[in-house]
Amino acid sequence: MTDLTRAHIEATVDAALAEDAPNGDVTSAAFVPESATATADLVAREAGVFAGAEVFEVAMTRLDDRVKVTNLAADGTTFVAGDILATVEGPARAVLQAERVGLNFAQRMCGIATSTARYVAAVEGTGARVLDTRKTTPLLRAFEKYAVACGGGTNHRFSLSDAAMAKDNHLAVLLEEFDGDLTKAIADGAARLPEGISLEVEVDRLEFIEPVLATGVVSTIMLDNFGLDELREGVATVAGRAVVEASGGITLETIRGVAETGVDVISVGALTHHIDSLDLGLDVRVSR
Amino acid sequence: MTDLTRAHIEATVDAALAEDAPNGDVTSAAFVPESATATADLVAREAGVFAGAEVFEVAMTRLDDRVKVTNLAADGTTFVAGDILATVEGPARAVLQAERVGLNFAQRMCGIATSTARYVAAVEGTGARVLDTRKTTPLLRAFEKYAVACGGGTNHRFSLSDAAMAKDNHLAVLLEEFDGDLTKAIADGAARLPEGISLEVEVDRLEFIEPVLATGVVSTIMLDNFGLDELREGVATVAGRAVVEASGGITLETIRGVAETGVDVISVGALTHHIDSLDLGLDVRVSR
Amino acid sequence: MTDLTRAHIEATVDAALAEDAPNGDVTSAAFVPESATATADLVAREAGVFAGAEVFEVAMTRLDDRVKVTNLAADGTTFVAGDILATVEGPARAVLQAERVGLNFAQRMCGIATSTARYVAAVEGTGARVLDTRKTTPLLRAFEKYAVACGGGTNHRFSLSDAAMAKDNHLAVLLEEFDGDLTKAIADGAARLPEGISLEVEVDRLEFIEPVLATGVVSTIMLDNFGLDELREGVATVAGRAVVEASGGITLETIRGVAETGVDVISVGALTHHIDSLDLGLDVRVSR
Amino acid sequence: MTDLTRAHIEATVDAALAEDAPNGDVTSAAFVPESATATADLVAREAGVFAGAEVFEVAMTRLDDRVKVTNLAADGTTFVAGDILATVEGPARAVLQAERVGLNFAQRMCGIATSTARYVAAVEGTGARVLDTRKTTPLLRAFEKYAVACGGGTNHRFSLSDAAMAKDNHLAVLLEEFDGDLTKAIADGAARLPEGISLEVEVDRLEFIEPVLATGVVSTIMLDNFGLDELREGVATVAGRAVVEASGGITLETIRGVAETGVDVISVGALTHHIDSLDLGLDVRVSR
Amino acid sequence: MTDLTRAHIEATVDAALAEDAPNGDVTSAAFVPESATATADLVAREAGVFAGAEVFEVAMTRLDDRVKVTNLAADGTTFVAGDILATVEGPARAVLQAERVGLNFAQRMCGIATSTARYVAAVEGTGARVLDTRKTTPLLRAFEKYAVACGGGTNHRFSLSDAAMAKDNHLAVLLEEFDGDLTKAIADGAARLPEGISLEVEVDRLEFIEPVLATGVVSTIMLDNFGLDELREGVATVAGRAVVEASGGITLETIRGVAETGVDVISVGALTHHIDSLDLGLDVRVSR
Amino acid sequence: MTDLTRAHIEATVDAALAEDAPNGDVTSAAFVPESATATADLVAREAGVFAGAEVFEVAMTRLDDRVKVTNLAADGTTFVAGDILATVEGPARAVLQAERVGLNFAQRMCGIATSTARYVAAVEGTGARVLDTRKTTPLLRAFEKYAVACGGGTNHRFSLSDAAMAKDNHLAVLLEEFDGDLTKAIADGAARLPEGISLEVEVDRLEFIEPVLATGVVSTIMLDNFGLDELREGVATVAGRAVVEASGGITLETIRGVAETGVDVISVGALTHHIDSLDLGLDVRVSR
Repeated sequence: MTDLTRAHIEATVDAALAEDAPNGDVTSAAFVPESATATADLVAREAGVFAGAEVFEVAMTRLDDRVKVTNLAADGTTFVAGDILATVEGPARAVLQAERVGLNFAQRMCGIATSTARYVAAVEGTGARVLDTRKTTPLLRAFEKYAVACGGGTNHRFSLSDAAMAKDNHLAVLLEEFDGDLTKAIADGAARLPEGISLEVEVDRLEFIEPVLATGVVSTIMLDNFGLDELREGVATVAGRAVVEASGGITLETIRGVAETGVDVISVGALTHHIDSLDLGLDVRVSR
Repeated sequence: MTDLTRAHIEATVDAALAEDAPNGDVTSAAFVPESATATADLVAREAGVFAGAEVFEVAMTRLDDRVKVTNLAADGTTFVAGDILATVEGPARAVLQAERVGLNFAQRMCGIATSTARYVAAVEGTGARVLDTRKTTPLLRAFEKYAVACGGGTNHRFSLSDAAMAKDNHLAVLLEEFDGDLTKAIADGAARLPEGISLEVEVDRLEFIEPVLATGVVSTIMLDNFGLDELREGVATVAGRAVVEASGGITLETIRGVAETGVDVISVGALTHHIDSLDLGLDVRVSR
Repeated sequence: MTDLTRAHIEATVDAALAEDAPNGDVTSAAFVPESATATADLVAREAGVFAGAEVFEVAMTRLDDRVKVTNLAADGTTFVAGDILATVEGPARAVLQAERVGLNFAQRMCGIATSTARYVAAVEGTGARVLDTRKTTPLLRAFEKYAVACGGGTNHRFSLSDAAMAKDNHLAVLLEEFDGDLTKAIADGAARLPEGISLEVEVDRLEFIEPVLATGVVSTIMLDNFGLDELREGVATVAGRAVVEASGGITLETIRGVAETGVDVISVGALTHHIDSLDLGLDVRVSR
Repeated sequence: MTDLTRAHIEATVDAALAEDAPNGDVTSAAFVPESATATADLVAREAGVFAGAEVFEVAMTRLDDRVKVTNLAADGTTFVAGDILATVEGPARAVLQAERVGLNFAQRMCGIATSTARYVAAVEGTGARVLDTRKTTPLLRAFEKYAVACGGGTNHRFSLSDAAMAKDNHLAVLLEEFDGDLTKAIADGAARLPEGISLEVEVDRLEFIEPVLATGVVSTIMLDNFGLDELREGVATVAGRAVVEASGGITLETIRGVAETGVDVISVGALTHHIDSLDLGLDVRVSR
Repeated sequence: MTDLTRAHIEATVDAALAEDAPNGDVTSAAFVPESATATADLVAREAGVFAGAEVFEVAMTRLDDRVKVTNLAADGTTFVAGDILATVEGPARAVLQAERVGLNFAQRMCGIATSTARYVAAVEGTGARVLDTRKTTPLLRAFEKYAVACGGGTNHRFSLSDAAMAKDNHLAVLLEEFDGDLTKAIADGAARLPEGISLEVEVDRLEFIEPVLATGVVSTIMLDNFGLDELREGVATVAGRAVVEASGGITLETIRGVAETGVDVISVGALTHHIDSLDLGLDVRVSR
Repeated sequence: MTDLTRAHIEATVDAALAEDAPNGDVTSAAFVPESATATADLVAREAGVFAGAEVFEVAMTRLDDRVKVTNLAADGTTFVAGDILATVEGPARAVLQAERVGLNFAQRMCGIATSTARYVAAVEGTGARVLDTRKTTPLLRAFEKYAVACGGGTNHRFSLSDAAMAKDNHLAVLLEEFDGDLTKAIADGAARLPEGISLEVEVDRLEFIEPVLATGVVSTIMLDNFGLDELREGVATVAGRAVVEASGGITLETIRGVAETGVDVISVGALTHHIDSLDLGLDVRVSR
């Protein structure tokens, strides 16, 4: 599972708080006495899967360390509309100023976890795992991959640095150099990879599977935009010699069929490319 | 319209490129010769409204200034599936490494502009304007508000620092102090605002409109979660003495009705809270 | 009042400490034993208004959290020569290294607060408020605006992002486009402002007041470099339809006359453009 | 002379521009067409000494590299009211947005250079040099020390890291350890200084001069708050064996007398502790 | 090969230049006229392998873009004492200020490349590759791994994020949970790895090889601190089912023997853990 | 002694931890339960001098403040193989992730301290001090100079900003201007130095010593690459009028001879230019 460290959370939350109030919250400073206190509940207004307990806590407490957050829902647990997911208590100005930032993070992360859980449920029992992709929101990849994991998904490579994935564009020049010999082209490039970096190769046609596997250095075969019959044939051809990944426009409606072809993993860009923030609210009570 | 400066684009793009390849693109480094070149088309795979021409250009060129981007679509223009929105040319390693980051920005921004344009079209002829909110993705507010403007929407306050918006939580303590006198409570807080900061007040009930306007310092009245009849009555009560804003769970289906009540502006959180990345692709050709 | 957050104080103080000792304090490291302790008094050497208690505390404690500061004067209170404003206790090396930075901040902030208080006293009873401007020291605006507020002044807009102020340069092109029709030019530009951003317009001549107010969207009229008679006439013309601001070379000698013309607010660049650091000293005693 | 590198100027100017417009200049964006251009003159409204030509240029051009600045006055040259010090030409939005930041830097730097030149003129012919101190504005030391040099002053140590200056507080513990033997205390500490770091010692009484010089490692003797007769006696006692520095509350009125005592250098905190921004203006003309 | 991007080089060089001259080069500023120019040769004073051409160029040109560097030796090429590796020309102050930083980078990188080349030469013809480790200088890993590659070495994983390597400490708890069943313990942990991350397992004893390979998910077996006979037996046991890595205190004297056992890769911490900067000099000529 | 502040340690360690795990430690996250704890001993595998106790502590605790480190060896103390230098206790994931970074810092710093101590021992009794140079690892100068001090060495100037050192290149233009008059050239440049900055001059030939000393402003004479007889003659010529520094290719074998010539200080680039990390290990025990 991808790491979401305290330091990264704090740095990102600080930047978000600064974006939302570069020169302070003029409303609270004018209307809310410095001594006023607030209590608040983070309430689910629809059902879902929770993700981001620590992120929400950091967002609410970072402006003023007298704010205290009690988390009532663990990441990865499900909730229904009306559930109280966390409570907040502290100086009212700080709570009101942090509210929107706290919600923006929590709603997006819960949205992703909830959506992921639907895909995971759809493939239940097939043995296939649901993968995320690099189609994440710029600067928020760690948050979104963490949310995918909370929803039961499996993280794929985090970045271009930690796993190799060769597509036709990567192979074009080497293929020409080796007169179209796919095995030689892949083996040649693979020899220049750092040690310990796994190699996945995307194939467009079934007949490419054997030459790819013939290299002996490919750990995963990606079958991109294949029909169900072709996927089944691909799985049969690979025959356990590599992980088989299906990808390409897979939706909640189609994923079950894909999973039943026997592929090992299914990557779904929509997990993070379409973000439906879950409806959460912060019910605040301010008093002297 | 909100500002999206070159410096902010570059800093954000740099961070996104570092997130996506903290230690380089191992695949390109191994498989693509340093001397290989690429040409690429940014192609629309569905219809929409363009936003982010400069962001895409920065993303594609930042790794290597030999990469050149030609923008073929201006921000705010519409396109159909199959349109080529920009062309890219340069060293293949840099193009391939930047591809995903460039697409992640462009697809999100076009998604927001396209969605906004639908809301704007829905209120056409009513005189109502469609506003965004602070429900934006953390760290990307300037990008998203810019995309809203590309789609024909009107930007609302950028942050807590540049306009005051008093809700019941803000007013609770002052109301108690002034024995429930709403006019006095608002006037008291308003006197502490910095000079030149406008004040919007959210009202829950129609009978609060008069005491709010009696302060003489409120520029906008927000009617939150009002029915259509109440909105009409609110508009009549305000009678041009302030801007009237409708807000609260407004959808593409309901916005026309809201607009026809005569409100001046309608804020729609969904513009940025639900992000459907538009389907764009980068068709790349690599050669020696 | 403008916000001066803990995070901003700490970041600015850290940068100032690094500027003053990029590689440590060679004198203290050589002459003062690591185990030596210091007690110190922050003493006023002249009368004034205090500002910056928290900033001074952060400056003195940031190098070593064993340093403790006891604040004896609240921000905004007056003091006379000889008053002890704070006491400091802790490891001698840290106290001696931080001394100059702590004083540099406190002396400047107290200087601004004290100067502001003189202007505020000069208009007492007239109803006019004293405003600061954007003529602040680069990078220290939040500190200086906070000090103005401590002295009884009113903060004007913090930046170019949070309020609109149209001067003749801004209007030149639109005036030409609308054949010199000031009302149309202003209304045209105002329609492009983000929602909730107030608009102030600077007028050079009394006859411009009516066309400016005719737009119905201008909240403040700035009368720049007007004589006292003109100011009075301007106030009468505006007649409460907008806030009236006087500006332009106003001094401690002339401000009372300006205030008595009936203007609402008077902006004084000198509050932050001429900085007379107040004479404060740190009386330190070092012992084993 | 202290260094003011391009990189440091750019980083500081960028921070100042961001402080003054975190989300852009809403006025220019609304009122000034993107295609409008501006020409502008930086005009002196009072006489003075110039400092900050490069800083002003960076400030005006940093937002948009199409802005061009022509410097007409070199740093360190004098000017009279009415002189045009630089001209600016470029896109109007960028010029108007940068105007205040450019002026804030230039006015402060010219104020310091002009003030310094008065002190330097006051000691002309005596052989004494005028020194600045560490009483500079936090974060702007390099700018202010550079301005002092433009005014003919001599820079003293930049920070606590680059020269040692032992005062009574530094010596207290060592004096106790060596039973009040000043020579031994200073020699003991000096032995712990990094190699190549010069040592200045502040003395309160004339009889301390000999024991201080007896160490053989002190390059400068600071006579703090001495009367003129004492200073003369101090100079005679030191007799060229070290640099003699006078300091403590020296003003434009008193500095000539101090200089005539024969001291080598005179440090004047007021050079940077009292900042009177010089009156410069930017006369802008905007056109289509 | 690990990536060393222009952006990373520039940021690191900038920090190094700031470390070496936080407030400028006082010597050059005082002694060298601003108009003086310098030409310089980067000369090898001993034989070696070059690495860091671009880094040296950035270091020499970053202070002043009028400095020009001509690289005469490509990274990875060998040179002998007396060879001129690059020439430099430009403003003398900038050249003299950058000299030490440029040399510090170039000497270390050449030292590593040269040392690596000796290890690579020692295993020539055996088929074994020489790997670096994570025992690199903090903050300079990309520079050092790049230098290893210049010397003919093969980069191992860049960080803890891009490949999994399970040692006994990692396995302790799972082994206990699975009653010492190594296959089950490894399989259990491997199932939690992100997709596409390869797994290497360190084994202490030969009899652990089979249960490790039985998992079917281990790509590399590390034999740590094995004798030559044991290594040979380990290679025979693995029999091509995984990459075999030897590690542990391997020196230039012992590496040939290790390579001849048939292992695939040999990791050598000393490549970067012992850094002998190569003797390079910059021969500078300054003139008016 | 050079300063190594907590803030600098933390910032550098944070950057090193991020370099070593930009997206977390995939191995620990997969194999080590979140609840597992570890105890560990930092063990010397060879004899040496300790340096970096606080750095090691920060490295081990920065990821998770529940990790506790007990330092058993003070900086500057000697140890033998087998000594336990510190113990660590805390969550296993954090301990395992930080291990390599903690060791990388500690091993390098101990290597430098140990090497320095050998040079210092070699000159024992001669009165000469061993100096470091600016030949340090980029970005780590404060750490390395601190380690030199732990080994008994004396720090030389930290940077180009805090002491002047004129070599032939610096003097070339002024010498020409003053027709080869070394005294005039040096005096001319020295007059432009900031006040309080000491001046060292490198001389190539013995006959240059007198003209250099004739300036009266040179505190140190550097004799670069002199033979032992020349050094003795140089010491005699200087006769206590300045510090005498020997430099140039001095090794552990030759330093005693150099010291016995009577020079005051000997600068040794190898202290930081050749870094032999000391062999330290972290013996970890992980349990549930």
